[in-house]
Amino acid sequence: MRDELVDRLRSVLGDDAVVDDPDVLDSHRNDHAKFCTAGVPRALVRPSSTAEVVEVVRAASELGVPIVTQGARTGLSGAANAIDGCLLLSTARMTQILEISAEDQVAVVQPGVVNAQLSRAVLERDLFYPPDPSSWEMSTIGGNIATNAGGLCCVKYGVTSDFVRGLEVVLASGEVVRTGRRSAKGVAGYDLTRLIVGSEGTLGVVTEATLELRPAPEAALTAAATFRSIEDGIAAAAAVMASGLRPSLLEFLDQPTLRAIQDYRDMGLPEDVGSMLLAQSDRGPRAAEDVARIAEICTAHGAVDVAEASDVEESRMLLEARRLVNSALEPLGTTLIDDVAVPRSQLITLLRGIAEIGAKYDVLICCPGHVGDGNMHPTVVFDPADAAAEARALEAFGAVMQLGLRLGGTITGEHGIGTLKARWLETELGPVGLELHRRIKAAFDPGNLFNPGKVLL
Amino acid sequence: MRDELVDRLRSVLGDDAVVDDPDVLDSHRNDHAKFCTAGVPRALVRPSSTAEVVEVVRAASELGVPIVTQGARTGLSGAANAIDGCLLLSTARMTQILEISAEDQVAVVQPGVVNAQLSRAVLERDLFYPPDPSSWEMSTIGGNIATNAGGLCCVKYGVTSDFVRGLEVVLASGEVVRTGRRSAKGVAGYDLTRLIVGSEGTLGVVTEATLELRPAPEAALTAAATFRSIEDGIAAAAAVMASGLRPSLLEFLDQPTLRAIQDYRDMGLPEDVGSMLLAQSDRGPRAAEDVARIAEICTAHGAVDVAEASDVEESRMLLEARRLVNSALEPLGTTLIDDVAVPRSQLITLLRGIAEIGAKYDVLICCPGHVGDGNMHPTVVFDPADAAAEARALEAFGAVMQLGLRLGGTITGEHGIGTLKARWLETELGPVGLELHRRIKAAFDPGNLFNPGKVLL
Repeated sequence: MRDELVDRLRSVLGDDAVVDDPDVLDSHRNDHAKFCTAGVPRALVRPSSTAEVVEVVRAASELGVPIVTQGARTGLSGAANAIDGCLLLSTARMTQILEISAEDQVAVVQPGVVNAQLSRAVLERDLFYPPDPSSWEMSTIGGNIATNAGGLCCVKYGVTSDFVRGLEVVLASGEVVRTGRRSAKGVAGYDLTRLIVGSEGTLGVVTEATLELRPAPEAALTAAATFRSIEDGIAAAAAVMASGLRPSLLEFLDQPTLRAIQDYRDMGLPEDVGSMLLAQSDRGPRAAEDVARIAEICTAHGAVDVAEASDVEESRMLLEARRLVNSALEPLGTTLIDDVAVPRSQLITLLRGIAEIGAKYDVLICCPGHVGDGNMHPTVVFDPADAAAEARALEAFGAVMQLGLRLGGTITGEHGIGTLKARWLETELGPVGLELHRRIKAAFDPGNLFNPGKVLL
Repeated sequence: MRDELVDRLRSVLGDDAVVDDPDVLDSHRNDHAKFCTAGVPRALVRPSSTAEVVEVVRAASELGVPIVTQGARTGLSGAANAIDGCLLLSTARMTQILEISAEDQVAVVQPGVVNAQLSRAVLERDLFYPPDPSSWEMSTIGGNIATNAGGLCCVKYGVTSDFVRGLEVVLASGEVVRTGRRSAKGVAGYDLTRLIVGSEGTLGVVTEATLELRPAPEAALTAAATFRSIEDGIAAAAAVMASGLRPSLLEFLDQPTLRAIQDYRDMGLPEDVGSMLLAQSDRGPRAAEDVARIAEICTAHGAVDVAEASDVEESRMLLEARRLVNSALEPLGTTLIDDVAVPRSQLITLLRGIAEIGAKYDVLICCPGHVGDGNMHPTVVFDPADAAAEARALEAFGAVMQLGLRLGGTITGEHGIGTLKARWLETELGPVGLELHRRIKAAFDPGNLFNPGKVLL
């Protein structure tokens, strides 16, 4: 049977830009989120230019076919999952770095550029693109923009939206709008750039981004401190943040996470270690001094052991524990990664509450996180073969979000809503806030063409 | 004649919260913008709480009376100017600092809190609220939010929106919405906080703001360098920005501005000085070292004279020239202050173009500015008694904005659109962007209750 959409797209974009092979389509149904349903797409299209995206949007709009935009599908909330009968719009061919300007400290890129590709290209010019989600070797700038991706360096540099100056976006009408600007400042009109960043593909298709760069910092040095208790580690993190130092990384690992890491690979961590703090400074000649001050603060807050790296290789080794988290948890079962962020003063209450939730629902919850931002990743680990355990894990997952909200936080610090958390969104936004979201969505996309059923149910 | 709106507001808020005295109303018609029309308001109301703002909005909405929200009316674009028959909603009684949390590094304030009041209150707790518009001794946080105010420290710390974590807003429906969050990170839903910051009172009434604070830096040290030409000064500024230093202030004064200052007060500036660069570092023990490096960079870029402050008092003296700009220009005539921002690589072209515009329209244009951000304030000075000169000045003002746009910049870096630049907005946003703005305005405020005729004509 001929597919009118496929035929039309092939006639405009060429045969090889449009895929309807069921196996290929099947392999593109999901992002990295677990426990999110994915539909069966009608076709996959890979436009190369803004003009081609316009053609795709017009065709889909006229035929009433919803569009799901996909980057590298490394997202963790199901926002890039297929919907039944949708057109998958992949940015895989929009991989051009259009410009890197040292003088203006900006890069202009297509959305399919991989974060690591951009980061390396600007580094060759002694420039720095800070946003560093852990997926950075695979994830695209377009995907980072769609989810307003965070990462390890947020604690000093901020998140993706802090580095997006302007966007080119194809709207549901097929019109192209440019938001923002290339200059450092600007207040002409509403901040549409920030509205689109983090909108998870529901408002339009980003076809170009103007990104802010910084002069490249020198390689970071690291301090790693272990504590007897969670409380000591959290208190030390708070003291570091209050000190006026601006660590370029400040990560926390709790006891269950550390035990899993030690079981996975012998890092010499003692059995009774309660928590670990990892901190970096990238202030070049000052980094060693910063790291020494952080070490002092940790010692003053009861650290059992503090290691300071004297060079980049030692720093890498100290960070190894953090890097092993996912690998270490994998053998223990299926993981359901949460992403609550709370005001830092609530971190100890959050961690105690998570321990209680784990006990109540009889599941293991490991809690690594970006402690400097109050953004934790409580990870529920359970046996996927045990249906009862899975049900309890999902209940624990929800309870963690409710706890985060009660403590004045958010259900998602950096992973997004997608489908994974869509039913919790109203709890955070309230009915008035949710209705305002719907009206904004309708202002951009009255026919609900883009990513229907994601974020807003 | 009884006024139904006034009677209703008095019955709910009390007599002294509602003003209909024509003299008082007349004194509240304008903000600090020149050349912007202001209408005759129907009444002025000063609610004290969110609940009272809700009552005000409901009453005005039911009676079809537009609302113009006013802070300290120090804005420079006419956004706070009265409209004929409007209700002025003043935040003058909403002056409570509700909370300062050292642990979470946030402050929660009502919108009528004066910037300086907040800045001093948090400094007592060794905390720092960076946004520092030059109006900071008078302007309110609500006004700073409405205009997304910038200031001198933007070059290091960013603008107001970078420090607003969450808002409470009364919508045109009288409903109250909370946007954003108290935590450092969060991506649940669209970024309504950023959408409202800078919306110049057109989307709702901000009744509470949760603001990000930083640990207080030490007092800044200053370097001041004079150059023979504009080109040398701009090149030195670019080199400072490329160096990886993060000056906490980087200001530029061009030759016409420096001459006006020298005529106003003898600062010992030579007749043939072409430009001046002022830079600060607030990095405590490192500030002197930073200032020395900035001085070296200036010398390497042809500075005629470089002064480095060795203490805070000397720093204050060096900054005196910058502080005298407005006073020095006042005796020369009426000033029309522009606010273009361009990519830094375009600054020399901008300044040359401005000199040509001045020559073409036979007006004096002085050009001080926040050079680190590419945000300049070309100031057209003319004799207000000379109608022809005024007409030429207004043409020159428009030509400067067109030039800024041609160079990839914006018509307003930090002052906003208001009424002053509303007719230029479409040139910057394009018809598609403008239409999207209108749809967003309608999504928030379908009856056009808030600040009609401002920003969007």
